[in-house]
Amino acid sequence: MRELPLEKAFMLIEPGNVAMVSTANKGKKNLMTMSWHMVMDFTPRFACLIGPWDFTYDALVDTKECVLAIPPVSIIEKVIGVGNCSGRDVESKFEKFGLTPLKARHVKAPLVKECLYNIECRVVDHIKKHDIFVLDAVAAWRNPSCKERRGFHAVGNGMFIADGEKLDMRNLMTRFPEVTRL
Amino acid sequence: MRELPLEKAFMLIEPGNVAMVSTANKGKKNLMTMSWHMVMDFTPRFACLIGPWDFTYDALVDTKECVLAIPPVSIIEKVIGVGNCSGRDVESKFEKFGLTPLKARHVKAPLVKECLYNIECRVVDHIKKHDIFVLDAVAAWRNPSCKERRGFHAVGNGMFIADGEKLDMRNLMTRFPEVTRL
Repeated sequence: MRELPLEKAFMLIEPGNVAMVSTANKGKKNLMTMSWHMVMDFTPRFACLIGPWDFTYDALVDTKECVLAIPPVSIIEKVIGVGNCSGRDVESKFEKFGLTPLKARHVKAPLVKECLYNIECRVVDHIKKHDIFVLDAVAAWRNPSCKERRGFHAVGNGMFIADGEKLDMRNLMTRFPEVTRL
Repeated sequence: MRELPLEKAFMLIEPGNVAMVSTANKGKKNLMTMSWHMVMDFTPRFACLIGPWDFTYDALVDTKECVLAIPPVSIIEKVIGVGNCSGRDVESKFEKFGLTPLKARHVKAPLVKECLYNIECRVVDHIKKHDIFVLDAVAAWRNPSCKERRGFHAVGNGMFIADGEKLDMRNLMTRFPEVTRL
């Protein structure tokens, strides 16, 4: 894993990629699959929708930290598998799906070795009324050894869309400060 | 425009497509470009990040309604243009960018004829602390005359990624109820 400048981490979430949330709580590492998240600020700050029905909920409330891991489309079957079962029923999703936990720098939740990017986050607010957790990123990592660089997006009903053509429109972006590329 | 069943509208937002927010307030129709939104529920309910710095903010507070319009990649230059200027300075973004407002069914904010999809929404909550508006969709529309069906995703710094390969993974999705396709 190579570290990314923190100010680039919003780029990992803004496109709405399918993500996994990694947590460690009461001696158990766990993963869930998530599509319901958004950028809230370039700082970067993220929101995500995780409710008491998710096993991950207690880990976020108890530990106030997690890792957002962005998988490449080459492991989509594992990512769907992670989403099809609960940490309540599976002893280790890492083992079950052949995913590798790596030590993070600031949080106890593990990075996921097989993912394109990992973002270490702290929970800074919990909007209980709407099941929204507000996360501030504290470190971001890029995995240069993933040959497949395409993320993917859920479009409902078991259909997904892989990233396609890259479009460089920087010459048209007059309103935002230039940030170096990922 | 053809109407879509409301229960499919989450599929229009879940992938993190670049969207435009259409509003009508004090006799003025306006558009903004937005990437910071997420699905909150299949009902469908959405969250989006719009602050007082956006001209659209007052329209949402005053009228409590808007339209989320999902553009095809073929009009990306117009969509970036919409994002590069403010309704405070431009009399009509519809006129300036050659976009066509169409009458919506339930809200005064117009649909955008050139977009793939339009979702009529009502503001159901405003989390001021985080500049989050919570939107409930009340109608959703598909534009069958758009030949270009690919949406696109902002990845920061003026770079975008168009939708690529479609992946049918329905045989692996064991946890969610089947919904018919868009």
